[in-house]
Amino acid sequence: MKKIKIFSPGTIANLSCGFDVIGCCLDTIGDEMTITIEPGTGVFITKIEGADLPKEAHLNVAGVAVQALLDELDQDIQVTITILKNIKAGSGIGSSAASSAGAVWAVNELLNKPFAPHDLIRFAMQGEKLASGNAHADNVAPALLGGFTLIRSYTPLDIVKLPYPEDLMAIVVHPQIEVKTSDARAVLKQNVTLTDAITQWGNVGGLVAGLCLNDYQLIGRSLEDVIIEPLRSILIPKFEQVKKAALAQGALGCGISGSGPSIFALSQGIETANEVAKAMHEVYKNAEIDFDIYISNINSTGIRRID
Amino acid sequence: MKKIKIFSPGTIANLSCGFDVIGCCLDTIGDEMTITIEPGTGVFITKIEGADLPKEAHLNVAGVAVQALLDELDQDIQVTITILKNIKAGSGIGSSAASSAGAVWAVNELLNKPFAPHDLIRFAMQGEKLASGNAHADNVAPALLGGFTLIRSYTPLDIVKLPYPEDLMAIVVHPQIEVKTSDARAVLKQNVTLTDAITQWGNVGGLVAGLCLNDYQLIGRSLEDVIIEPLRSILIPKFEQVKKAALAQGALGCGISGSGPSIFALSQGIETANEVAKAMHEVYKNAEIDFDIYISNINSTGIRRID
Repeated sequence: MKKIKIFSPGTIANLSCGFDVIGCCLDTIGDEMTITIEPGTGVFITKIEGADLPKEAHLNVAGVAVQALLDELDQDIQVTITILKNIKAGSGIGSSAASSAGAVWAVNELLNKPFAPHDLIRFAMQGEKLASGNAHADNVAPALLGGFTLIRSYTPLDIVKLPYPEDLMAIVVHPQIEVKTSDARAVLKQNVTLTDAITQWGNVGGLVAGLCLNDYQLIGRSLEDVIIEPLRSILIPKFEQVKKAALAQGALGCGISGSGPSIFALSQGIETANEVAKAMHEVYKNAEIDFDIYISNINSTGIRRID
Repeated sequence: MKKIKIFSPGTIANLSCGFDVIGCCLDTIGDEMTITIEPGTGVFITKIEGADLPKEAHLNVAGVAVQALLDELDQDIQVTITILKNIKAGSGIGSSAASSAGAVWAVNELLNKPFAPHDLIRFAMQGEKLASGNAHADNVAPALLGGFTLIRSYTPLDIVKLPYPEDLMAIVVHPQIEVKTSDARAVLKQNVTLTDAITQWGNVGGLVAGLCLNDYQLIGRSLEDVIIEPLRSILIPKFEQVKKAALAQGALGCGISGSGPSIFALSQGIETANEVAKAMHEVYKNAEIDFDIYISNINSTGIRRID
C-alpha cells in the first residue's frame, strides 16, 4: 500500500476579460486529501469532511476523474480517497476542480508519474463534466500546473503556462449567497457584438502581455470585461461597491471569480493586498452579508504533497 | 531649412486572430519620403511618384497627419513633403499608414522630438481616418514603434509594443486585384457567437504569449481566425491554395494581411521563408494572376532615416 497526503488549491477562473480561457492558482485556500493505492480494483471514497457530497465514486468528481486516469492504464489498482473540503461548493473558486485535479495528481504521484502534468488535465476535466455538465479546464489547469494558465484551444486541447510578476497577490471575497449555475448561465448571451469581442480580445492580449512582461499596470488596465461581467455581476450583491472599494485601495483590477459569487482582485504586493481585503471586508460587513475572505500569493506549482 | 529622407515601411495588420488589435512592421517594402521644414506656415506636398494621389495637403493622408501634429504645436513652420510610393494603394500592407506615419515621424525628428513615438500615433491616425473613414491604429502603430504592436484599447488609446523571437520572418504576396474596402467591410457580420469569440481570444492570448515567450510553435498554432478570415478570404482569389501551399512548406501560419488582398505568412528563419515564398509564387503563377511577393525580417525599429 502507498499513501500520500496533498493540498489541492482553489483557483480563479476567467479573470475578467479571460472568460473561459485564463485561470490562476491560489495558495492559502485549498482542500486536503489523502489517497492510497494498493493491489485490487475500484475507486473508494471513504470519508468527506466539510461538505455534503456523494461518496459513490461514479457520482463524485474525484472518483470520476481517477477512473478516467485508470481507464488509460493497463494496471489493476485499488484507490481509496478521503477529502477534507475547505473550499465551499458553489463558491466560484474551483471547489470541484480541487477535488478532481487533486485526486488524479495524487494517484499519478503514487504510480511514479506515468503521465505528465498536462496529460492529467483531461482526466480532471471529466470530474468537471460531472459537476457542471461541461468538461471545462479553466480551474483544473491552474490547479495542476500552478501559476497562470491560458487555454489556447479545446480541440485540440492546448494549454499554455504563463509567467507572471512575483509580487502579484490575489484577494478573494466569497459572499455566503448561492448563485445557481443555471442562473449564471442563463444571463449569458449567445451572441456578442463584433465591437465588444474586439475590445475583449484586446484586453486578453494586454493581460497576457502584462503577465509575460512583468507589467503590473498593464495587467491592471487589461482586467476589464465588457461581455460577461455586466450580465453576471447583477447576481452578486454589492458587486459594484466591492469593486469600487478594491480599486480605490490600489487593486490592479477586480472582477468575478469563476461564475461567482466570489469576487477577486489582484494587487502588487502584500501591503496593498491587505488594504484591498480590508476595503472589501467593510462593504460586506456594513451590508450584513456573511463572507469569507482570502489573501493569497499566486501558487506557482499547484497541488503539492503535505505528508 | 532642415531636411530629412526616410524609409517608411509596410505593415501587416490583423495577423489572423488579432483582428483590429495586432500588427507588425516589415523591412523590405516601404516608401521613401523627403521632408523639409522652414520658417513659414502650411503643408505642401510637392511631388508624389509611383501613385496617383492628391497633392492638396488636406486631401492627402500625409498632409492631414502632419497638420494634426502642427495643430498641437505653438510654432509656425512650413512643411514640404515629397513621396516615392513603393507600397501600392489598396494592397493591404499599410500603404496609407506608411505615408501618414512617415510624415509625422519625419517632422518630429526635424523638430528635435517634441513628441514621444507613442504620441505620434494619434496624429498618424488622422491620416488613416481620411483614407478609410476610420481612425484605426493597427498599421500606423507598428510603422511608428516597429516590431509587433498590440492595441489594448482605443479609448483611452493604449498601445503595447510586444517582443518577438529574432528569427521570425514574414512573407507577403500581393495579388494584383482590387478588393474594395466597402466589400471587405460589407462581408463582416456585426454580431459573432460567444463561442467563436472565445476561440478567437484564446488564440489572441496564445499569439501574444508565443511572441513574448519566443515560442514559434505557439505562434503558429495561434495564427487562426474563426471570425474574419472565413468571410473575407472569399474575396481573394486562390486564398485557400496559397495558404495550404505556405503551410505545407513550413510556414508557422498564414492569413489575410490587413483587409487584403495581400496574404501574409510567418516563418522561423530565412530558409523556410524562401520555400514558403516559392510555394505562394507557384500558386499565383499557375493561376496566371499577377502578383508581387516580399520576404522580410521583422523591422524592430519602424520608420528610419536614410539620408
